Amino acid sequence: MAVYTQVSAEEMAAFLTRYDTGSLISAKGIAEGVENSNYLLETQREDGSRERFILTLYEKRVNEADLPFFMDLLDHLGARGCKVPRFISDRQGAKLQQLAGRPACLIEYLSGISVTEPTAPQAASTGRALGELHIAARDFSGTRRNSLDLAGWHDLATACGKDFDGIQPGLGRRVAEELTFLDAHWPQHLERGVIHADLFPDNVLMRGDEVGGLIDFYFSCTDILAYDLAITHGAWSFSSDGSEYRPDVAAALVRGYADAHGLSAAERAAFPILCRGAALRFLLTRAYDWINTPPDAMVTRKDPLAYLRRLDFCAQAAPEALLGL
Amino acid sequence: MAVYTQVSAEEMAAFLTRYDTGSLISAKGIAEGVENSNYLLETQREDGSRERFILTLYEKRVNEADLPFFMDLLDHLGARGCKVPRFISDRQGAKLQQLAGRPACLIEYLSGISVTEPTAPQAASTGRALGELHIAARDFSGTRRNSLDLAGWHDLATACGKDFDGIQPGLGRRVAEELTFLDAHWPQHLERGVIHADLFPDNVLMRGDEVGGLIDFYFSCTDILAYDLAITHGAWSFSSDGSEYRPDVAAALVRGYADAHGLSAAERAAFPILCRGAALRFLLTRAYDWINTPPDAMVTRKDPLAYLRRLDFCAQAAPEALLGL
Repeated sequence: MAVYTQVSAEEMAAFLTRYDTGSLISAKGIAEGVENSNYLLETQREDGSRERFILTLYEKRVNEADLPFFMDLLDHLGARGCKVPRFISDRQGAKLQQLAGRPACLIEYLSGISVTEPTAPQAASTGRALGELHIAARDFSGTRRNSLDLAGWHDLATACGKDFDGIQPGLGRRVAEELTFLDAHWPQHLERGVIHADLFPDNVLMRGDEVGGLIDFYFSCTDILAYDLAITHGAWSFSSDGSEYRPDVAAALVRGYADAHGLSAAERAAFPILCRGAALRFLLTRAYDWINTPPDAMVTRKDPLAYLRRLDFCAQAAPEALLGL
Repeated sequence: MAVYTQVSAEEMAAFLTRYDTGSLISAKGIAEGVENSNYLLETQREDGSRERFILTLYEKRVNEADLPFFMDLLDHLGARGCKVPRFISDRQGAKLQQLAGRPACLIEYLSGISVTEPTAPQAASTGRALGELHIAARDFSGTRRNSLDLAGWHDLATACGKDFDGIQPGLGRRVAEELTFLDAHWPQHLERGVIHADLFPDNVLMRGDEVGGLIDFYFSCTDILAYDLAITHGAWSFSSDGSEYRPDVAAALVRGYADAHGLSAAERAAFPILCRGAALRFLLTRAYDWINTPPDAMVTRKDPLAYLRRLDFCAQAAPEALLGL
């Protein structure tokens, strides 16, 4: 939640001369996303009309080689009516630029607020929006490997090694057992496609109970569609520390998704496994960051145990409780 | 440059129900100011009209008891045509609220960009705006003591004590000698009134070469008017590290101020002393922060020596060079 790369207003104004946006009249560094530096810009054209944009500078955690995939995906989804921010082309047609030594893009601004305590109606809209996204992406030709898949979880667990037990005694063993379980049970034949893979409430701009925008596609990749629903389920249906399950929110989310996209019998049957995998994925990335981030760093460390609680809940819950049936 | 107090969108939406602003449709934490937490909000009324506001939560460096002075001052200045952000009253007429355990205010949003390398035309506009501010504040009845006056500089120097020389050998002695000089020469009979006291380029929103807004009045107080010009001169007329003087920017600033407000013979004669005081004031607060801020803290420490260079320049420069005559 910080601006890592400082860009002067003069540099931003010069940058915007590449685009048909008019001239810069406001620029605010915004504390959004942990991966990139973002500025909210406003421009004014000669006829007085104004427009807002997000200027994103990509810090080291986003691989520049992945940017064309994200750009093409959002173009594709936007053209099919999904409420996603489009990347803006300059007068030469280029979307990917360099600014202050970083890859940089100008991106459509969408209004809406990110809720902290989602309600069931908001979860229902989000489920529908996710289902519509999966449908709209069906004829998208791009692919991107999910580096945080089952094999990636093994790599992360190996990297954390003995440090797991510094977070909580026994955690290393618990993770190893879960990986063994998932190796044996991870579904192999469910429908795959482009998934968002990080649809936390932070990444949904709500307008009342409606979705005004889905943002932050920098984890999007090719994987099991219902796994995307399971990730969203874990992010939306629990208190943030994972101690409290909200069955009404879960039920609304799943129903919204099923209404828009459908949810096959095979997907329903595998859903508890997918939820366990989703919980483990965030447990592992948070544990890795916890171990490798100094406690006094500028980035807030997120508690890995909030996802151990989700994992424990999903491992013992009845499938109907997870699906809200 | 951070958001210190996190406020959820739900809390902000509930907060706005006190006001006639319509409902919240966007909220972005903005990285602005080192003292407070700021959010840029957008609201929409039932007729579809939209408006933007700054929501400020005051962190510990602003004294809540001072807020009414700032509010009344900006009301007064705004009513006289100065481009300053007004504090918004809720339906009961209250401007000062509590939010997330902090004093909080909703404030008018002004567009414009803060330049990093000001040009002479921008400095001229800023000088005029400062002169107009001093004129508009003439009949303002509020007063606030400047805690960073000559007596306050002595206190800061005492607090830094032997740590000065850890910044640069000999700095403690240089500061002591300068204080002795200023004790003997600080002007006693120049016109006093409300001053901004912190009019760095950061705090001026430019629209091209015109001033779109003066912001961040949280150091404003009662002191010598020409001292405010000297502070602005030090902030605008040097490269940020203080190594390079920009006589064209200085001349434009002083001329703009003199055109709008006038600059008496006594003020011109005292200007070099006022510039030395202004340089010492920022040298001292930066040195104090440098000594008392851990190097790995979230706040960027600003180099005190950038103001020692200004002090050295002002102490040896011909008065005409400082005034740009």
